[in-house]
Amino acid sequence: MTDKVIRNLQICLEDGSVIRGEVFIQNGKISRISETPIENFNGEEFDGKGYLAMPGFIDQHIHGASGADFMDGELHGTEKIVHYLPTEGTTSFLATTMTHSPDHIHNAVNTNKQFIGNRNFKGAEMLGFHLEGPFIHPEQRGAQPLQYIHKPSIEMLKEWFGAQLDDLKIVTLAPELDTNFEMISFLHNQQVVSSAGHTKASFEIIQSAHRHGLTNLTHFTNAMTGIHHREIGVVGAGFMNNNLFCEVIADGVHLSTEMLKMIGKFIGSDRIILITDSIRAKGLPDGTYTLADQDVTVVGQKATLQNGTLAGSVLRMIDGVKLMKELCHFTIHEIQKVSSMNAAKQLRVFDRKGSISVGKDADLILLNEDLELQHTFCLGELCFSKV
Amino acid sequence: MTDKVIRNLQICLEDGSVIRGEVFIQNGKISRISETPIENFNGEEFDGKGYLAMPGFIDQHIHGASGADFMDGELHGTEKIVHYLPTEGTTSFLATTMTHSPDHIHNAVNTNKQFIGNRNFKGAEMLGFHLEGPFIHPEQRGAQPLQYIHKPSIEMLKEWFGAQLDDLKIVTLAPELDTNFEMISFLHNQQVVSSAGHTKASFEIIQSAHRHGLTNLTHFTNAMTGIHHREIGVVGAGFMNNNLFCEVIADGVHLSTEMLKMIGKFIGSDRIILITDSIRAKGLPDGTYTLADQDVTVVGQKATLQNGTLAGSVLRMIDGVKLMKELCHFTIHEIQKVSSMNAAKQLRVFDRKGSISVGKDADLILLNEDLELQHTFCLGELCFSKV
Repeated sequence: MTDKVIRNLQICLEDGSVIRGEVFIQNGKISRISETPIENFNGEEFDGKGYLAMPGFIDQHIHGASGADFMDGELHGTEKIVHYLPTEGTTSFLATTMTHSPDHIHNAVNTNKQFIGNRNFKGAEMLGFHLEGPFIHPEQRGAQPLQYIHKPSIEMLKEWFGAQLDDLKIVTLAPELDTNFEMISFLHNQQVVSSAGHTKASFEIIQSAHRHGLTNLTHFTNAMTGIHHREIGVVGAGFMNNNLFCEVIADGVHLSTEMLKMIGKFIGSDRIILITDSIRAKGLPDGTYTLADQDVTVVGQKATLQNGTLAGSVLRMIDGVKLMKELCHFTIHEIQKVSSMNAAKQLRVFDRKGSISVGKDADLILLNEDLELQHTFCLGELCFSKV
Repeated sequence: MTDKVIRNLQICLEDGSVIRGEVFIQNGKISRISETPIENFNGEEFDGKGYLAMPGFIDQHIHGASGADFMDGELHGTEKIVHYLPTEGTTSFLATTMTHSPDHIHNAVNTNKQFIGNRNFKGAEMLGFHLEGPFIHPEQRGAQPLQYIHKPSIEMLKEWFGAQLDDLKIVTLAPELDTNFEMISFLHNQQVVSSAGHTKASFEIIQSAHRHGLTNLTHFTNAMTGIHHREIGVVGAGFMNNNLFCEVIADGVHLSTEMLKMIGKFIGSDRIILITDSIRAKGLPDGTYTLADQDVTVVGQKATLQNGTLAGSVLRMIDGVKLMKELCHFTIHEIQKVSSMNAAKQLRVFDRKGSISVGKDADLILLNEDLELQHTFCLGELCFSKV
């Protein structure tokens, strides 16, 4: 891979400070960050035009885009997603499965595995899997198909991912169905994130689950018990437990703008993880698409099943970031936390992702002063430029 | 009235600092606060025994105690309440009416008026009225009787309180029923507090009502629209609007302890006003009592109608204060805000109530280090001592 320098940047550093400078890239990694121009460089030159450089977005909860869904289990489909994601600033992600038959899930995992750690696929990097279902509560299933919901089973996990749960990063489950929190404890031992979602848990169950290792709440406020004044529920746990990350779909459809403000104000940038939860319809026109064999109708920003249930989103990370900035007046540092750093830390890839630092992967996005995406670099390769 | 000195105190001052010293009382008012002992005092001596002196509690929402209810419209009954309240640290209060027939409300107002500004009744001071209903939403009536609910009517207010609304301090109403916010605007002009309660208002309606003068939320979280992730409701407004006071019944029954913690953490001591909302059963054994002609059964801390609806409380202010201190780790300064200062400011009596300051009424409570009430002084007179 050719060495590269991106000159003339405003660089957002890991501590949130922004400096004028240039970023040098060697073999896909950031080799140097310099505040003074360095002449006589023997490699590719790229003019940053004074843009703001931030770490590429990490989307830990995404089902599809550009016509493809990871559950299709098709190499070519996943390749389309990987190519698409840099257009919204995403440079790494978790392939997120849905509640389906064991064979179907197994097949999706086997196919998509081929993308992990494989540099032949130019585009966003698949970091592993987010298993959303089938271990969820039927009454909070949202758009997850009822017939494939299953009680928590460690055996099934091992069948799909092997005894060491290779490449499994997050499991969304209903903790109230996990007897003695056995699955959560097992996942914790394997360094896999347990996330409460599609759940009817009480506040106390979440607190107990947290003590067994649960650290994340899946698409916070959606498909979970809300706040009642005598039982503050999973949503209350998200507000009150300072050790839980909260995934947020900032599309203004899944949550009202006032709820997004409330989350920004009280949960704050240290615990919010922006996600898209997007489906195959993202990047395509309005119309009818499929999600786990169900018809999903997309009109504007809204994707619904025939009964009106929200069925994922068509949100692009860059748009979620812009909305949160507008509503919550986040600083640049707060933005890099909610869009990249927090996920990198939780997924244990902060040694190579989640900030612009020497030695880390050159996953960079360049933004103008209105936070409009201009360029995306994945492992140092230019994968998107605004036309 | 004899001059008095209370020596050997820890005195909580208006700014929250606590000093060792003594408080001098002349004609019912605090005449001097001294950090050094003053000898040769020609008046009554009282040994404070090193207790903490705080401003007496102000309960802006109370229906009754000790067998009596303000709605009874009986002088002797109200006198019983006035005598009872110092036993829980309350030194001033608003007589709170309930939804009932216009004549009934009128009669209750006329009788109780005789207590206002009248020093013949030794005990807690009635500062005026809190009119709770009849201008409320039928579907959020709680224990307010359905048949007397009425649409907001300024004419009715004038009939009960006169054209200038004398002695009316707070009106609890459902703002969504107040056409063009006419009553709220009128109350605002008359310097009467509008409080949203027993309401189905949306977040936006509360925000509009606030722009017309609404400043208080009645027994926050009870009998109002809760937080939904796409419509955060009246409860959401309480959390998000920094200019609203929130009445809180801290009995652990109306709200769970977790919700009380959440309110303490996110709303905080500048906007919480502790109330009791207590009924005639307070201070009496478990049994069946009446509330607006309905049977109310009291077991422990819980008072309910026959259908199970909560019907006021039997909470004592001192117990609410202790619970909030335990749950929210409030400082002494925070405690004086939520139990006295905030209400005094909102009710426009902070020139004479709500803090221990020279020139203010000598409404004082003495507490031991566990916040157990030892003595209560109302306008300088000892009205309660722990046996």
